[in-house]
Amino acid sequence: MNILVQKYGGTSVGSLEKIKEIGNKIKKKTEEGYKILVVLSAMGSATNDLITLARGISDKPSPREMDMLLATGEQTSISLLTMALIDQGCRAISYTGYQLGIETTALHQNAKIKKIDQQKILTAFEDHEVIVVAGFQGINEQRDYTTLGRGGSDTSAVALACILEARCEIYTDVEGIFTGDPRKLPKARKINRIGYQEMMELSSLGAGVIHPRAVELAGKYGIPVYVASTFSNSPGTMIEDKEEKMEEAVITGITSSLEDVQITIHHLDPRIDHLYNLFSHLGKENINVDMISQMVVNEDLMNVSFTLPKADKEKGRKLIEQWEGVNPHTKMDFNEDIAKISVVGLGMRSHSGVAAKVFQTMAKNHIPIKMVTTSEISISWVVEARYEKEAIRRIGEAFSLEEDNGEMDR
Amino acid sequence: MNILVQKYGGTSVGSLEKIKEIGNKIKKKTEEGYKILVVLSAMGSATNDLITLARGISDKPSPREMDMLLATGEQTSISLLTMALIDQGCRAISYTGYQLGIETTALHQNAKIKKIDQQKILTAFEDHEVIVVAGFQGINEQRDYTTLGRGGSDTSAVALACILEARCEIYTDVEGIFTGDPRKLPKARKINRIGYQEMMELSSLGAGVIHPRAVELAGKYGIPVYVASTFSNSPGTMIEDKEEKMEEAVITGITSSLEDVQITIHHLDPRIDHLYNLFSHLGKENINVDMISQMVVNEDLMNVSFTLPKADKEKGRKLIEQWEGVNPHTKMDFNEDIAKISVVGLGMRSHSGVAAKVFQTMAKNHIPIKMVTTSEISISWVVEARYEKEAIRRIGEAFSLEEDNGEMDR
Repeated sequence: MNILVQKYGGTSVGSLEKIKEIGNKIKKKTEEGYKILVVLSAMGSATNDLITLARGISDKPSPREMDMLLATGEQTSISLLTMALIDQGCRAISYTGYQLGIETTALHQNAKIKKIDQQKILTAFEDHEVIVVAGFQGINEQRDYTTLGRGGSDTSAVALACILEARCEIYTDVEGIFTGDPRKLPKARKINRIGYQEMMELSSLGAGVIHPRAVELAGKYGIPVYVASTFSNSPGTMIEDKEEKMEEAVITGITSSLEDVQITIHHLDPRIDHLYNLFSHLGKENINVDMISQMVVNEDLMNVSFTLPKADKEKGRKLIEQWEGVNPHTKMDFNEDIAKISVVGLGMRSHSGVAAKVFQTMAKNHIPIKMVTTSEISISWVVEARYEKEAIRRIGEAFSLEEDNGEMDR
Repeated sequence: MNILVQKYGGTSVGSLEKIKEIGNKIKKKTEEGYKILVVLSAMGSATNDLITLARGISDKPSPREMDMLLATGEQTSISLLTMALIDQGCRAISYTGYQLGIETTALHQNAKIKKIDQQKILTAFEDHEVIVVAGFQGINEQRDYTTLGRGGSDTSAVALACILEARCEIYTDVEGIFTGDPRKLPKARKINRIGYQEMMELSSLGAGVIHPRAVELAGKYGIPVYVASTFSNSPGTMIEDKEEKMEEAVITGITSSLEDVQITIHHLDPRIDHLYNLFSHLGKENINVDMISQMVVNEDLMNVSFTLPKADKEKGRKLIEQWEGVNPHTKMDFNEDIAKISVVGLGMRSHSGVAAKVFQTMAKNHIPIKMVTTSEISISWVVEARYEKEAIRRIGEAFSLEEDNGEMDR
């Protein structure tokens, strides 16, 4: 059986016309002899509309009931697409996460996939050319609906591809992965091939095309993931193992984010367990601390600075105020007016001086760096928000991330 | 365990404000010591909106996918009400038809309930004061979603009450069952108590407050059903066994409908199997023929006249044209400009002359009768649509169906 997994995001199923158009596309693909498992997101803004509805009932809606509500979003889109396929003479059938036995961990709104009933899918493919599956959702041990959180449908698609040992195609509203956000780096180049690890860093750092969880899963199982535009025929980006590739550009891509707030805590005792305490305290409440930088001023004083999502700012502030490490001298600064810029590339491993070049480029253009962190294949730094676009453009020039730089396979 | 089943219709959950208000009402009732199983319809026009959405995809959407789509309507309302209840400190949980194991026959859009998992409900009541269940939906043997058709949520509620041997309360936007539609019989009286059989006839004949399937089921299991207004405190109508009651008014209520078309087929051979053939031919396609009147003109010629829902007119016309009984002389008339008026009452059994009084009332007021059918406890007749209101008013007077007629218990 020649199985292909295709995932279509919310904008791709944003209207009845688009759903019919996707139906045509899928139908044509079946004529090439493929059995296709289609994973869908909810239509357009449906998920956000449901969240708004719930907030109209309660400031803090029951997480179980929230997932019950959110699950209707994909159930709607899968039934409509399947109607369209059947109307075109295609043997298609839809399944919710519940019906397909997509078992997850218990945590509502952020569940992780544990198990998928492979046999149910293979049996369904005996009578059907296309199976349309609700992404983003599953069931926990209590047979309650769960949802997978941000990027959940990408993760559903990749997990299903892993189970079926199939290629995974993610269709979206952009033409693939670019060296930078084309709105900010206008001459950004489309990347033809990228490795799992680079892609994971890029995704984690704000390249919203595919969720890092999905990339991580694909890498773990060695499933190739192709990212392309739903309604265009131009070639997209293949995410796959790049070990065999000899030549590497130093930097694969640049990302930026305005979604974080930088928190600086001054005048902490430099106790050895303080930072561990603080970040486990925040972690327990699911606050995702990103960049962390610590500085010991003298043997009695320490400052720590870190970023977290703007959405968690007030929750974070409260938790920090309750934290035992705070003393009467402690002072906190919250700075929302920041941009986080990141460059990613496997090439960093073997090319020294990337950090130096970043600092040099910023300095030459008089853009002050407020904080820096690095990983094996990425460097991230914080600048004032107003410098975001210029920083991206300058780095794009410095690392040749723009078009017309030859015909390299990336 | 003191269990109560309450059903709230679409207008009762038509907005977030109304959902919260129902939440308050239910919460108060739990404080009286009840465990409450709440059955909900979809919010306001949600079901119709979903049907419109499907029609935007296909003229004849796949029935299985249609039920997949429709099932989202109640899933939305149950999650929102449960959020509201939990927000008020009530231990509540929602279940879809799927989760509760409401097993039905296979026929999509018109499934019948076969079995409900009583144990699952009782177990859920151990930890919860309120269980909120999606009405109108179930699952078939293939674990596909099914829906129960018109009045499905009433049927769900009564079926659950039967399983739990509980009293069933149907909350709606009217204050109970009236002797006639107050828009047409302005002085219509509210009925305090009515028997299952009378209610079934009234419902079948167009009194839309509760579906006849639900009444039939309640009667079969002897479950009392109380029909009242959601947002008013005035007493409603109790539907229950009335056998023990000695005195009967002759007529309990009057209904009318403008939803039918009268079809007359002239010049048929009076073959003995003709009518059987015709109506089984229509029945196979789920066309619900209602009133039937047949007249043999002479030994070579027969006319037959019957009504069916306006929505099925074109389908019916096609089926009749294909029917083998049609010959070159056959002529068909379709008359949409009709009203069907019906009176219902257990008292007809013992009081002769009801039909005579109907005919007399029509004649005295110069309203021509175009067709008549009778059952043991009802008489229905067809008049031109323009006479509908006058016919109702005159019958209301003749049979004392209006207010201020003493203090009888009805």
